[in-house]
Amino acid sequence: MQKRLSVQGYVEGILSGNRVILSRAITLIESQLSQDKILASQVLESILPFSGKAIRIGITGVPGVGKSTFIEAFGKFLTSQGKKVAVLAIDPSSQKSKGSILGDKTRMEQLAHDPLAYIRPSPAGAFLGGVANRTRETMLICEAAGFDVIIIETVGVGQSETFVRGMVDFFLLLMLAGAGDELQGLKKGIMEMADTIAITKADSDNLPKAKLARAEYENAIHLFPPEESGWYARVMTCSALENAGIAEIWDLVEQHKQLLQKNGFFEKNRQNQNLEWMQNSIQQTLGEHFYNHPKVQERLKNLQKDVISGKILPHHAAFELLSIYIK
Amino acid sequence: MQKRLSVQGYVEGILSGNRVILSRAITLIESQLSQDKILASQVLESILPFSGKAIRIGITGVPGVGKSTFIEAFGKFLTSQGKKVAVLAIDPSSQKSKGSILGDKTRMEQLAHDPLAYIRPSPAGAFLGGVANRTRETMLICEAAGFDVIIIETVGVGQSETFVRGMVDFFLLLMLAGAGDELQGLKKGIMEMADTIAITKADSDNLPKAKLARAEYENAIHLFPPEESGWYARVMTCSALENAGIAEIWDLVEQHKQLLQKNGFFEKNRQNQNLEWMQNSIQQTLGEHFYNHPKVQERLKNLQKDVISGKILPHHAAFELLSIYIK
Repeated sequence: MQKRLSVQGYVEGILSGNRVILSRAITLIESQLSQDKILASQVLESILPFSGKAIRIGITGVPGVGKSTFIEAFGKFLTSQGKKVAVLAIDPSSQKSKGSILGDKTRMEQLAHDPLAYIRPSPAGAFLGGVANRTRETMLICEAAGFDVIIIETVGVGQSETFVRGMVDFFLLLMLAGAGDELQGLKKGIMEMADTIAITKADSDNLPKAKLARAEYENAIHLFPPEESGWYARVMTCSALENAGIAEIWDLVEQHKQLLQKNGFFEKNRQNQNLEWMQNSIQQTLGEHFYNHPKVQERLKNLQKDVISGKILPHHAAFELLSIYIK
Repeated sequence: MQKRLSVQGYVEGILSGNRVILSRAITLIESQLSQDKILASQVLESILPFSGKAIRIGITGVPGVGKSTFIEAFGKFLTSQGKKVAVLAIDPSSQKSKGSILGDKTRMEQLAHDPLAYIRPSPAGAFLGGVANRTRETMLICEAAGFDVIIIETVGVGQSETFVRGMVDFFLLLMLAGAGDELQGLKKGIMEMADTIAITKADSDNLPKAKLARAEYENAIHLFPPEESGWYARVMTCSALENAGIAEIWDLVEQHKQLLQKNGFFEKNRQNQNLEWMQNSIQQTLGEHFYNHPKVQERLKNLQKDVISGKILPHHAAFELLSIYIK
């Protein structure tokens, strides 16, 4: 194992924008060793006052929608404007394979070699909630290291996009033209959560289809309940290949930020996200503690069967387990 | 306080469809007294094998959409076909007022006097989760009492409709014609959760507007991710005043049931709901136990402030509270 730095060593390295130390700090955050966890906590508390200045963008969509290609084009556009961009990922599939698919540097080769960009693959881990925590912390460290835009990427098919929605300022849903098979697997409710929907691959033969889709989604979206903030979702088309629509999507991110900063919802949203982060951490850790209890585990298996088959009231099964847990 | 019956007294009364005993059993379920809770548990376990035969329908919509009027017309239609109908409610507003607004019998006067119908106001309670549990249990008792259709009513503005979605076979969203102010407050994501959307008050001057809204929502809905079950949401218009569209909505409920019973999703959905009910009960009770811990409460107030102001990492605040809790 690599030698650890002192808290000060990490903090100074991060604040000076040293990429090597940034990467080592993130590795520290991802470590499961208890002494690393203590060290990581101290580093995080020290950089906390320097975090929060970036704009945080969540990007989601089903596999095949062209997320990496879009993020590469979007990232290159931002770095061409002198902005420093960090790309992080929450990848539920990496939970199983213990390796990362999303955030893999080879997928975004141009952006990976851009000195203004930083790409970090998804951390592996058994619990999606734990992975999400580490991604949040990595985001804060990247902010302290001076990145202007943090992009958090995930797939819109499970639970991970809910975590991402809860840690970003702006949520972008990428979709393919034509409603049908490509919607299969997309999480229900996610369309109504998007601040903007972008129809990808709007180029050559696909362009008319993409324009039609845009019009259809625009019609659909004005039927959705509006955001409390006064923002209403937009639908765009884009082509990473032809570099079309990319600047326009960034423009929406900035419009959104301006509106929400003006009416206070930007700050309010971040405050709520912090509170929810605390509540979710509590809930998750309590749950882990409960389900890891040996006697709970022993009884749970049979109770689950009885609950599924309707032999026992789920509420009563819960109470039986809780009485085992609380002793 | 009214004298309690024996377990057998309640069970026999419920199974024979005795309304007075049914009502007393529900009051028992809603009681907060610990000896009542034990008795209620025994009654529930005894009737459990006789539950599950009704079709369970959740109905939601913002205040003003005409929920009671619709449910009265819908319920009368069902009783006219010889079906026994129970109407229950989960009303978040009753948490505060300790009284019920939804489910109030005076709102559905005709249905309330129908010998085939049974209307039960929403139970009061401090925790929405607890109220939801009691509504689930009431639903099971009504099924054991021989009701063919259980309607669970709620408002689509908060958290209660998520609970209702988790306990029914079919979820109906009532909406007013014309997208605009009346959407304000409708929960984000709820449109994508509906098995059917019905545009209410489709009569006289409002009819053209309602028809237009139906066409718009139909276009919008085919852009949504499809249900795993193969069901796709429908949009209907209806008028409780003119009794129009009511039979058609019931027809959809039956079509939905047939499809899902055929492909196994009907049973699978109920099994998943039971498992989730158990998990939610565990989560909720663990959470209550945690947040009611005197030392946790003492520390929580200041930590929350620090979390909101960004002085402390939410994750770390959670750990501090958990270490207080677990000692």
